[in-house]
Amino acid sequence: MSLLVQKFGGTSVANPDRIRAVAARVLRTQQEGHEVVVVVSAMGDTTDDLIALARQVAEQPSDRELDLLLSTGETVSCTLMAMAFRAMGQEAVALTGAQAGIITDNSHRRARIVAVDPQRVTQELEKGRTVIVAGFQGITDGSDITTLGRGGSDTTAVALAAGLHADRCEIYTDVDGVFTADPRVEPRARKLDEISYEEMLELAKLGARVMHPRAVELGEAYHLPIVVRSSFNDNLGTLITGGKQMEYRRKVRGIAHDPDVAKITVVGIKDRPGVASKIFVPLADAGVNVDVIVQGTAVDGVAHLSFTVSKDDLGKAVSLIKNLLGEIGAQTVLSSPGLAKVSIVGTGIQYTPGYAARMFQVLGDHNINIEGITTSDIRITCLIDQSRVQEAVQALHEAFILDQPVT
Amino acid sequence: MSLLVQKFGGTSVANPDRIRAVAARVLRTQQEGHEVVVVVSAMGDTTDDLIALARQVAEQPSDRELDLLLSTGETVSCTLMAMAFRAMGQEAVALTGAQAGIITDNSHRRARIVAVDPQRVTQELEKGRTVIVAGFQGITDGSDITTLGRGGSDTTAVALAAGLHADRCEIYTDVDGVFTADPRVEPRARKLDEISYEEMLELAKLGARVMHPRAVELGEAYHLPIVVRSSFNDNLGTLITGGKQMEYRRKVRGIAHDPDVAKITVVGIKDRPGVASKIFVPLADAGVNVDVIVQGTAVDGVAHLSFTVSKDDLGKAVSLIKNLLGEIGAQTVLSSPGLAKVSIVGTGIQYTPGYAARMFQVLGDHNINIEGITTSDIRITCLIDQSRVQEAVQALHEAFILDQPVT
Repeated sequence: MSLLVQKFGGTSVANPDRIRAVAARVLRTQQEGHEVVVVVSAMGDTTDDLIALARQVAEQPSDRELDLLLSTGETVSCTLMAMAFRAMGQEAVALTGAQAGIITDNSHRRARIVAVDPQRVTQELEKGRTVIVAGFQGITDGSDITTLGRGGSDTTAVALAAGLHADRCEIYTDVDGVFTADPRVEPRARKLDEISYEEMLELAKLGARVMHPRAVELGEAYHLPIVVRSSFNDNLGTLITGGKQMEYRRKVRGIAHDPDVAKITVVGIKDRPGVASKIFVPLADAGVNVDVIVQGTAVDGVAHLSFTVSKDDLGKAVSLIKNLLGEIGAQTVLSSPGLAKVSIVGTGIQYTPGYAARMFQVLGDHNINIEGITTSDIRITCLIDQSRVQEAVQALHEAFILDQPVT
Repeated sequence: MSLLVQKFGGTSVANPDRIRAVAARVLRTQQEGHEVVVVVSAMGDTTDDLIALARQVAEQPSDRELDLLLSTGETVSCTLMAMAFRAMGQEAVALTGAQAGIITDNSHRRARIVAVDPQRVTQELEKGRTVIVAGFQGITDGSDITTLGRGGSDTTAVALAAGLHADRCEIYTDVDGVFTADPRVEPRARKLDEISYEEMLELAKLGARVMHPRAVELGEAYHLPIVVRSSFNDNLGTLITGGKQMEYRRKVRGIAHDPDVAKITVVGIKDRPGVASKIFVPLADAGVNVDVIVQGTAVDGVAHLSFTVSKDDLGKAVSLIKNLLGEIGAQTVLSSPGLAKVSIVGTGIQYTPGYAARMFQVLGDHNINIEGITTSDIRITCLIDQSRVQEAVQALHEAFILDQPVT
């Protein structure tokens, strides 16, 4: 008998009917001989509604109280799910993150899991009960309730699966799995049957919203197989895993894109040690997430530094840097909204000559200007104009023959 | 500096505006030099809404999961209240029942508090913070969340006040205090400035819905002064307390009534030991709350037994007893809905001749038939026809001169 952790997102548990449908689905899996622990997100828009409610009381609600408030969303959905199981004749028990042993640090709103102590989960499983755990939440060693921030329920599921030594973690969502590109942008995109943790990480970071990168990282750290699949059909989904076969397959595995980023360029920086931290530490303190960073080589001791931020953070970032110009000895700051990132991802493409060149050539053939380039071991990313993103994704998808199954 | 525990009910925290108003009110009390711990109920109809949601998922939701679900109602209101304080510049912290140390047995839906360990509350008070505690909820020694059943938030407040050795517990509600009769029935009813625990207990049990009897009992056990007052004005309310002056005041303190009860009569019971338990144990097992019980003296070894139940339980109780008729050797069962209870309450009235006689005479003068009588140390209750209840309350209120202040 294998042990599975199955996570269902907010769309999958948005109302009582869907909750019952999920319970029925899990029951079928159990009847096939699997033990199942279910992790749920809050129903539909509950989290947003609770934040709106808090803002009616206080403009800037305190993080500790907001966490306790938001945690009720997943507590509600996990209790309803347990009730649905019992109504179908299956003994079930709902556990909060605290009861399931999800121990976190005390960084409210974005807590990190420091330990999983799933003793209660194990005891309940031994009694033959289906265990339903509230995702997204944990408890500190001081008994305060925390939430895990973005991707929180995925992270709960993977951490719990690791703590329970489960055979795999299944992330149920509203898409069929991981695709070679976003199917809304490239209709010929194919679902991948398998992908490596690293590739998935890059795809996730680059805007493939199937699964949050931190949950992928956690899966990789514990060698835990993760399956991403649809909660609305029985298709097999995509298996995220490690393994030797990775080296042998076709190198470009998918095209990722993020259609809405902004570029900031700090012009004429005096090239001396410590300048970068003087820019990026204040940005981090202000909660601005910086992505692609490109620093040109200094000429005559003066360099330009470019980086991307989400469109929402552009105004805050620019005004922050304007205040820093004197201190960092820079001339001015420029910003361009309306950009997009497009990336090719695949294990080993950096070690295989020709992939970057081919990517640039494809974009050039379509007369798409490249406004910045960054690379990682398994990824090449170009910044391009937002209006050209669909054309770029489709052209790269075709050029790297992603519309045909791997043989 | 005195320490107060102030409890605000669902109406007082029904929306963000009212939550802010409560916070402002508590702040004023603090500025007068009091330390305050706030206990809150769930906002408005939240508890009913959550029960309705649960019933959409399962016809008979399990008690354990229902408790966890319902507990979110008070968790939401206590976090919002803490946010309101902080928005007004007062450091505040929201605590769940578990965090506040409300330890209960594991009778879900109607848990009893077995211990209060308010260490965290004390620590937060020492830091100068206003502590807001979620009422109605607790935690078992097995870390399961429980709810306290009816009157739960009042009970949380009184228990916490006792555990903290607070100077008093204030129950804020939508009426000005405890009245000599229900003001909707007897417009000349007066608010009492003071009442004994015992008198309050009888009034509460007899349908004066100001405060739940279990919270009053707890206050009495810990000699904790309780004040019942309005959250919508600054009137002083009613002080519930013990004390020697009780013996000296006018004896009848109030008229209580319950306008809708049903009477069941089991006719022709063979008078032998154990018959009563054969009737009342199955009723208790079925959750039927039995109130006034009157057993007539047996004649020729045959007796009739009457008792009242709430109108809602009448059908269930009658069909239960029909099945028992053979076993208890009774002839038949009769039921009369449409009755009411009217009671006079006052310390020592049982020891003072003439009160019962006066009550019966007043009812007789108004041609109101008495269908049953019970008494306690401090109460005399008559069952009368429902249609006569207002007349009875007003007549008794006048006869015992309750419309004039105690001199």
